[in-house]
Amino acid sequence: MNNIRIVLSHTTHPGNIGAAARAMKTMGLRHLYLINPRLFPDPQATAMAAGADDILENATVCGSVGEALHGVVFTVAMTARLRDISLEVKAPRQAVSELLQHAAVQPVALLFGTEMSGLTNEELGKAQVLANIPADPDFSSLNLAAAVQVMAYELHLATHEFLPQVPETRPATNEQLEGLYEHLERTLFEIGFFTTQNPARLMQRLRRLYARARPEQEEVNILRGILSVTTEYNARLKSRYQRENENVSGD
Amino acid sequence: MNNIRIVLSHTTHPGNIGAAARAMKTMGLRHLYLINPRLFPDPQATAMAAGADDILENATVCGSVGEALHGVVFTVAMTARLRDISLEVKAPRQAVSELLQHAAVQPVALLFGTEMSGLTNEELGKAQVLANIPADPDFSSLNLAAAVQVMAYELHLATHEFLPQVPETRPATNEQLEGLYEHLERTLFEIGFFTTQNPARLMQRLRRLYARARPEQEEVNILRGILSVTTEYNARLKSRYQRENENVSGD
Repeated sequence: MNNIRIVLSHTTHPGNIGAAARAMKTMGLRHLYLINPRLFPDPQATAMAAGADDILENATVCGSVGEALHGVVFTVAMTARLRDISLEVKAPRQAVSELLQHAAVQPVALLFGTEMSGLTNEELGKAQVLANIPADPDFSSLNLAAAVQVMAYELHLATHEFLPQVPETRPATNEQLEGLYEHLERTLFEIGFFTTQNPARLMQRLRRLYARARPEQEEVNILRGILSVTTEYNARLKSRYQRENENVSGD
Repeated sequence: MNNIRIVLSHTTHPGNIGAAARAMKTMGLRHLYLINPRLFPDPQATAMAAGADDILENATVCGSVGEALHGVVFTVAMTARLRDISLEVKAPRQAVSELLQHAAVQPVALLFGTEMSGLTNEELGKAQVLANIPADPDFSSLNLAAAVQVMAYELHLATHEFLPQVPETRPATNEQLEGLYEHLERTLFEIGFFTTQNPARLMQRLRRLYARARPEQEEVNILRGILSVTTEYNARLKSRYQRENENVSGD
C-alpha cells in the first residue's frame, strides 16, 4: 500500500479533500497528491479529515498531472463516463488487482478528477487503465470522497487476500513514456508524417496503442533508438543529396 | 433493491444523512429510514444530497428501532467493534449476499448506528447478522455516509453483473500483423537500425511489444503509414533535389 498514490485533480471543495484523506486512512493508504486544489490547506478539509490530519499534512501539492505522476509506472484513472472512451474500462476489483501487481515493486497512482467534470482527456491519456464504479445509470454521480472510499476499500480487501506476484519486468515510468511520446511526435513532424493528418488526434491514438502494451524501460529505449536512427538517416540522406547538388552546380 | 431499507439510527450530523441519501441513490437504493435524527429535515442534508432530494423527501422518520424494522424479515447491523460481540460478524460481501436472498421475497434492513458510538446493544440485538467493513486497525472509523456508500456499492455489485466496457474494436488479423512486422523489419534495415544490432532478437522483442497492445486494423494502418513516410520522405527529398539540380543545370 506504501507504493500507492491517491491523486486528486483540481478538487473544488476542501471538505472533499479532508473526507478523502479520512477514507484513505481507514484503509491504510498514506500518500495523497493534490493537483491544483482550489483551496488547500483549509479548515474544512481538516474538519472532514476527522483525525486523518497526518495525511493532509503530508499531502503533496502539485502543479500538473505530470508532476503528480513523477516516477509512477502504472496509473488507473477513474471515470464516470462509459461512452466516447476507447480504452477498456475495468471494474474496481479488476483495476485494483492490476494496480497492486505493479505496486509490489514501484509507485502507482489512482487518479480522480474534479467533482463536476471528472478528468480531462489529457489526464485520461496518462493512464494505462480506466476504472468505473458501477452505479445506477439514472444517478451515477458518486461524491468524490465516496469514490475514494470505495476504491480504498477494494484495495484493502485485495491486499488482505492477495499475494502480489512480483513481475519480472521493469515497466517504464511516466516520464519515460512522456519522453517517448514527445520524441515520437517530434520525429513524425520531422519526417513529414503530420502534413495531411491531425497530429493531436493521431498522437492520442498512438499513446493509447502504447498504453495498452505497458512498455518496459528497455522497450522504450529500443523505440527511441529507432526514432533516433530515423532522424540520423534523414540527415544523412539530406546531406548526400545536397552534396550531389553542389557537385553538379560546381561543374 | 426495492425491498431494502437503509436505516440510520440517531444520526448527529444532517450532512451525513444527505450524503448517505446520495450514496444510496447512486447505487439504486430508494428507502431511507431515520430513527430520531438530531436535525431533519435540514438544509445541510439537502445540500449534501446533491440531487438525491427525492430520497430525503420520501424518508421515513421513526421513533424507535422497532418502528423502523416493522415488517422486516432480516436485518444486517453494521459494527466497527469486533470484540465483545457474540453474533458472528460477516464481511460486507457475505452479509450482502445473505441480505439479498431474503430481499427477494420480503423487506430487509441494513442498520447503521451513530457517528460516535455506533449501534446500541438493544439495536444490535434486533439483527440476524452483524457486518463489519474491514479497515486499518489503527484508524477504523469510516464516515457514516462512506460506510453507506461501501455497503450500497456491494449491494449494487451483487445485483448487477458487471459487463466490462470493451470498446468496439476491429482487431488486426494475423496477416495484417505479419504485414506490419515485415514492413517494420524492411524499414529498420533501410534506415540502418540493424547495423549494430541483432535483427532477429530485436524483431522478436518488437513483436512481443506490439502483441501485448493487441493492435486494431486502423492502428496497423497508422503504423505502416509512418513506416511508409519514413522512406517515402527520403524519396521525395531525393527527387526534389534532383529537380532543383535539373533546374540549375538547365540555366
